[in-house]
Amino acid sequence: MSIDRLQAMIDEMKNPAVAGLDPALEHIPPGILEKHFAKKGETLEAASEAVIEFNTGLIDALYDIVPAIKAQSAFYETLGPGGAAALKATCDYAKSKGMYVICDGKRNDVGSTALAYSSAYLGAVKVGGAELRPYDFDALTVNAYLGTDGVMPFIENCKKYDKAIFVLLKTSNPSAGELQDKYIGDTTLYTAVGDLMEDISRDTIGEYGYSRVGAVVGATYPDEAAYLRARLKHTFFLVPGYGAQGGSAASAAPAFDKNGRGAIVNSSRGIIAAWKVAGGDYREAARAEALRMRGELRDVLGKSDQR
Amino acid sequence: MSIDRLQAMIDEMKNPAVAGLDPALEHIPPGILEKHFAKKGETLEAASEAVIEFNTGLIDALYDIVPAIKAQSAFYETLGPGGAAALKATCDYAKSKGMYVICDGKRNDVGSTALAYSSAYLGAVKVGGAELRPYDFDALTVNAYLGTDGVMPFIENCKKYDKAIFVLLKTSNPSAGELQDKYIGDTTLYTAVGDLMEDISRDTIGEYGYSRVGAVVGATYPDEAAYLRARLKHTFFLVPGYGAQGGSAASAAPAFDKNGRGAIVNSSRGIIAAWKVAGGDYREAARAEALRMRGELRDVLGKSDQR
Repeated sequence: MSIDRLQAMIDEMKNPAVAGLDPALEHIPPGILEKHFAKKGETLEAASEAVIEFNTGLIDALYDIVPAIKAQSAFYETLGPGGAAALKATCDYAKSKGMYVICDGKRNDVGSTALAYSSAYLGAVKVGGAELRPYDFDALTVNAYLGTDGVMPFIENCKKYDKAIFVLLKTSNPSAGELQDKYIGDTTLYTAVGDLMEDISRDTIGEYGYSRVGAVVGATYPDEAAYLRARLKHTFFLVPGYGAQGGSAASAAPAFDKNGRGAIVNSSRGIIAAWKVAGGDYREAARAEALRMRGELRDVLGKSDQR
Repeated sequence: MSIDRLQAMIDEMKNPAVAGLDPALEHIPPGILEKHFAKKGETLEAASEAVIEFNTGLIDALYDIVPAIKAQSAFYETLGPGGAAALKATCDYAKSKGMYVICDGKRNDVGSTALAYSSAYLGAVKVGGAELRPYDFDALTVNAYLGTDGVMPFIENCKKYDKAIFVLLKTSNPSAGELQDKYIGDTTLYTAVGDLMEDISRDTIGEYGYSRVGAVVGATYPDEAAYLRARLKHTFFLVPGYGAQGGSAASAAPAFDKNGRGAIVNSSRGIIAAWKVAGGDYREAARAEALRMRGELRDVLGKSDQR
């Protein structure tokens, strides 16, 4: 089962981290960009090919020490149709290296439209007599503002194709609380979303006790993470906000259960743009930062022997 | 200004309707699909080219009587990278025919990621020394669950490139109320989102009194629409749920202001799949349905002389 596989990979590598491949062009070494501009001009197509080369290098540098990648869809979409091809190439290459691949698309809609999104990223689409997989990620982030009938079509494909979703609860940004922290009855909105998700995912729980419906809980709000960890027993957490956004291993720690499981911490800029700080080859810089982050997570989780 | 232009087109055509180009493959006449399968096999690429042909025919049949199209991004994404090319081709062709083009992507994120989404659909991206427009829609739908710092980057590009967004308030689906109807303090969540949006868009109000930050308010909830219309003076409404989802011209009417302005009603399946009910050529069936819908809206708005 999808989340079991992720947890097993985390256990094996002793690293509950996901590398965020958010290839804003300013994070790509100029030499890579210039090479592709020389071939195809300063075009979206050239930029998309530079992204593929950049990501391929990052995946090669990381796949034996980091179990998962998370591709932030926005940075691919911003390159137009060529960017969609780069997203697919990144997904395919990371999978070929055995990584767990998450699409951070925060998709949301209802009925047949939600089903179309879930078929796009997690499932298959019928074209004539053929059943084709447009992207085939392992997991997708989802925004549940539209209620459960906006989420059920994703769960349907999660079951059918052995996939998972991560639903936004408490995000990592400064204004997250404007709506998410508001009380509705005796719980906050983010808790209400979490409760709804636990409820509709009960029949998808795997061997580690976590369901196919995970949650996004920012590393920048450790108290809220601790509260949610205690309340949402079956919800695996995807934790953004580490590094550039101000979160740390210590502030991410409350997202984990007492066995040091049940969560994975994302770092994007910290890893992919490490070369800007450290200098040298971007792949070596990314690997060094991923190893540093792994050490920090192990230390804080107090599990450096076991995990 | 973007919303002024939309309202002026609505006034000129006397038709506050938008045609939803949501090309699920089952809505495309088999002859079109088979033609493209014959050329490129049962592939996502062939399906994407069938979508382009289908949409081109629809736009040709509608552009002189319907002011706008709304492309539901999910149905393009579900065809992979070729689908992204079909989305772009649809946007470009509709614009070449003078239509106002809305991307229904319900995008949401924060900071540089939200800016990347808004640059993708509404703005431009810098590639080396070039400034390129990946899609260049007139407007994009946005989900505001992450709070105002998830919306401000979209507004930034709306101002810079003369565009608009429509933020989800009260959606048209059955479970919309699970979260959106809950009270936070003395207002519902959807009202709180609407209030926030009015607040941050005050400096973008155009000549008709509407700002660049519109709202999605389902035709299936007329009481809520009436309440929001009275409260959100500067918010232009995009109204889904007409037709297949059970909404009617009568249930959409409360979304309009006393001058019959300030809203646009979407019909997707009703128009694009009219050939399944009416038979005959899909373009003629779509046009006939669009004319019928226009008549119904005019009648209900009681403005058949003036508008």
